[in-house]
Amino acid sequence: MKTYRKTDFPVSDVRRFIEPGPIVLVSSHWKGENNIMTMGWHMIMEFSPSLIGCYIWQNNHSFEMVRRSRECVINVPTEDLIRTVIGIGNSSGADIDKFAQFGLTAEPATEVKAPLIKECYANFECRLADARLVKKYSLFVWEVVKAHVAERPRFPRTVHYRGDGRFMISGREVSYRRYFKPEML
Amino acid sequence: MKTYRKTDFPVSDVRRFIEPGPIVLVSSHWKGENNIMTMGWHMIMEFSPSLIGCYIWQNNHSFEMVRRSRECVINVPTEDLIRTVIGIGNSSGADIDKFAQFGLTAEPATEVKAPLIKECYANFECRLADARLVKKYSLFVWEVVKAHVAERPRFPRTVHYRGDGRFMISGREVSYRRYFKPEML
Repeated sequence: MKTYRKTDFPVSDVRRFIEPGPIVLVSSHWKGENNIMTMGWHMIMEFSPSLIGCYIWQNNHSFEMVRRSRECVINVPTEDLIRTVIGIGNSSGADIDKFAQFGLTAEPATEVKAPLIKECYANFECRLADARLVKKYSLFVWEVVKAHVAERPRFPRTVHYRGDGRFMISGREVSYRRYFKPEML
Repeated sequence: MKTYRKTDFPVSDVRRFIEPGPIVLVSSHWKGENNIMTMGWHMIMEFSPSLIGCYIWQNNHSFEMVRRSRECVINVPTEDLIRTVIGIGNSSGADIDKFAQFGLTAEPATEVKAPLIKECYANFECRLADARLVKKYSLFVWEVVKAHVAERPRFPRTVHYRGDGRFMISGREVSYRRYFKPEML
């Protein structure tokens, strides 16, 4: 098997290799105001209930909005929105209306007051499930209570941030289903 | 901007769209025994200290090994190891020696007793930083204390599990550095 010549690597930069997740846009609503933030740090934690852990920094304008409303929508953008994703990350909801500024459409959700972003491929309506690690790690555990996903394309080109201004665009899809034990699927 | 026609989607299947992270192999050592497990659910939680949150199910043989030793190595495999990754996930360290079974090389780490997997592109030596959410969510918060990364290729083809036997292979790399506010990099 293939092996590699390796060097020491700064531990603070390991995100480059495992951050992997698609960049998502978190939309929120609190006291009549909508907002959007760009988020790269999240993980699936359970299927049923459907739990997602998310890092939302306390300095983000969205932090208090999601903490107080205990709701958000996680929206999955595709490659065509990459400049918008960066623009949303560069700006603050304290200064601008991000839906207006970036020409995005706020659609009503069904289970939460936070809006869906119509231009995103998928929208996951979330309610706060656990706030125990918010104070120490800015980690919110969300339960997805409703999911909306585009019918096509089947495999969207998602955008995966590697830090330092670089992105990986999702590549080809392969099935190895036949190699899995059925109970592992 | 592009919009999409959407359908309701099972909330328990949202992993397909955001699980995104590269599949990693977690190696561990406890009482003279080495083991490896395949892991798909993890997230970066901090740069410095370098923290990674990981879901390790209590029924995995590795669960007690990492919980007791309070150490592990997170190894990043590339596309050439995809069959090995599946084989490791299909089997249990309670039954077999996975290094021997899959022809992998256990190399000594520098800061922990868990071994590095030589055939993997990157190896992150970890110590347990927080076990508060282990009982309820199987969530371990690890601190990366030492990182080893291959010098080339610069952009490895990593393997991103979508559930149901399907993987996304990492695609092209693009830089949008010029669009970021410097403090956002």
